[in-house]
Amino acid sequence: MNNIIDIIGKRTSLRNYADKTITDEHLDIIIESAMRAPTAGNMMPYSIIIIRDNKTKEILSHTCDEQPFIAKAPVVLLFIADYQKWMDYYVLNKVEEFCVENGREFTRPSEASLFLATEDALIAAQNAVIAAESIGIGSCYIGDIMEHYEKHRDIFDLPEFAFPVGMLCLGYYPEGYSLPPRERFNKKYIVFNEKYQRVAEEDIKDMFKHLDNKFVDTNKYNAKNYAQMHYSFKTNADFSKEMDRSIREVIRIWNGKNMTSI
Amino acid sequence: MNNIIDIIGKRTSLRNYADKTITDEHLDIIIESAMRAPTAGNMMPYSIIIIRDNKTKEILSHTCDEQPFIAKAPVVLLFIADYQKWMDYYVLNKVEEFCVENGREFTRPSEASLFLATEDALIAAQNAVIAAESIGIGSCYIGDIMEHYEKHRDIFDLPEFAFPVGMLCLGYYPEGYSLPPRERFNKKYIVFNEKYQRVAEEDIKDMFKHLDNKFVDTNKYNAKNYAQMHYSFKTNADFSKEMDRSIREVIRIWNGKNMTSI
Repeated sequence: MNNIIDIIGKRTSLRNYADKTITDEHLDIIIESAMRAPTAGNMMPYSIIIIRDNKTKEILSHTCDEQPFIAKAPVVLLFIADYQKWMDYYVLNKVEEFCVENGREFTRPSEASLFLATEDALIAAQNAVIAAESIGIGSCYIGDIMEHYEKHRDIFDLPEFAFPVGMLCLGYYPEGYSLPPRERFNKKYIVFNEKYQRVAEEDIKDMFKHLDNKFVDTNKYNAKNYAQMHYSFKTNADFSKEMDRSIREVIRIWNGKNMTSI
Repeated sequence: MNNIIDIIGKRTSLRNYADKTITDEHLDIIIESAMRAPTAGNMMPYSIIIIRDNKTKEILSHTCDEQPFIAKAPVVLLFIADYQKWMDYYVLNKVEEFCVENGREFTRPSEASLFLATEDALIAAQNAVIAAESIGIGSCYIGDIMEHYEKHRDIFDLPEFAFPVGMLCLGYYPEGYSLPPRERFNKKYIVFNEKYQRVAEEDIKDMFKHLDNKFVDTNKYNAKNYAQMHYSFKTNADFSKEMDRSIREVIRIWNGKNMTSI
């Protein structure tokens, strides 16, 4: 087992940071590693915003589903699905006129652009996570950054085709800090050979049994089992509904329609 | 510079594989590393299908925008955004009845579920990429797996809430093989401090100049510059339109609507 596999195997989310700033040298290693990540057609359809400002982190700790530890991370990195630069490049080079002359449509960034950009942004983020881990810096992803699109757009001056899809809180490990890796689902329910294997009813029970064991009889949701609890505090929670609304708004913008008709 | 940063820095896409199978031990390291990746709420809303079957790889080499090297990769990994298991768990545990009793809606997986699952699948994929690289196995992402959703659904027996969002071709490096890392955009156009910086017109020219230098005067698109060429062979190409269509169909399914009303 080499040290890369070892680091990947031991990494857990860190929400509790040593009280010191991240050095410029270390931050640079993290950023450079992110920028080396694979990206479709070498397009790099993402941007990264480095946030150290305490006021901004404080705001994010509220807009991202009230998670106070965000404000305490020395550095927060925002990963943005970003086609604005490519659109600006196209417009500057008269791609619209070229399309008209050649009987083609000049279209807005589309659902495909949004998905590819989201994927590339997260691939870059995971490079950042592993690079950080290798130099003693822990991290925690904040998916809640996809909520409140309009607020985040205004805070960060985002143009039309820039959507924050991921956020990383970064900080050095507190001295002596370690957490055991979290239990994952059994591999046989995640990894299949050649074709998808729909998990059978009795296997669903086995797959989720470590969660079912966490069920608390007296709960505020009036739930009779862990699945009902989980649905209530996660899938159907207010923050999930807000994330749905926010993403729907973004999909409405990235619609691949003709630029000239809007 | 540690060896992790070194490996991240040197990694390029590999489309040319040594003619030998990947050992079970190595494949296991790659899969285990993927499964250790961070995942929102520890939900692991993804599945991984291991493909070694030559016929399947041959089909994928056509459905993924005609890329013959896919058929030659010893192993292909399919990363699937997957909420089916969670939905099955909810249904088995009578979450719908619970919702009716408590005056709540029982909803289908939504846009937020789709984005979170897509992100987690790609975060896991990038762990696989780095783990593979560390044991001499190169990789290439195939985003084109998001095209032809219905065909891939049928090939892999995918249930309703399972969408292939990423694919990795894997294989050992051919002996003596090395490629220089590809040129990336200048960091100042990708990384910003505190707020987004819209790239100014003259900077767009600078940002893209290494691409503009690749312009070929006589081209089949009748393009007058590289931006017009790029729009033609990439953003507005047939495969991009197919990816749009395919993803729109998936978004139509993952719509967060009430399960009982459909």
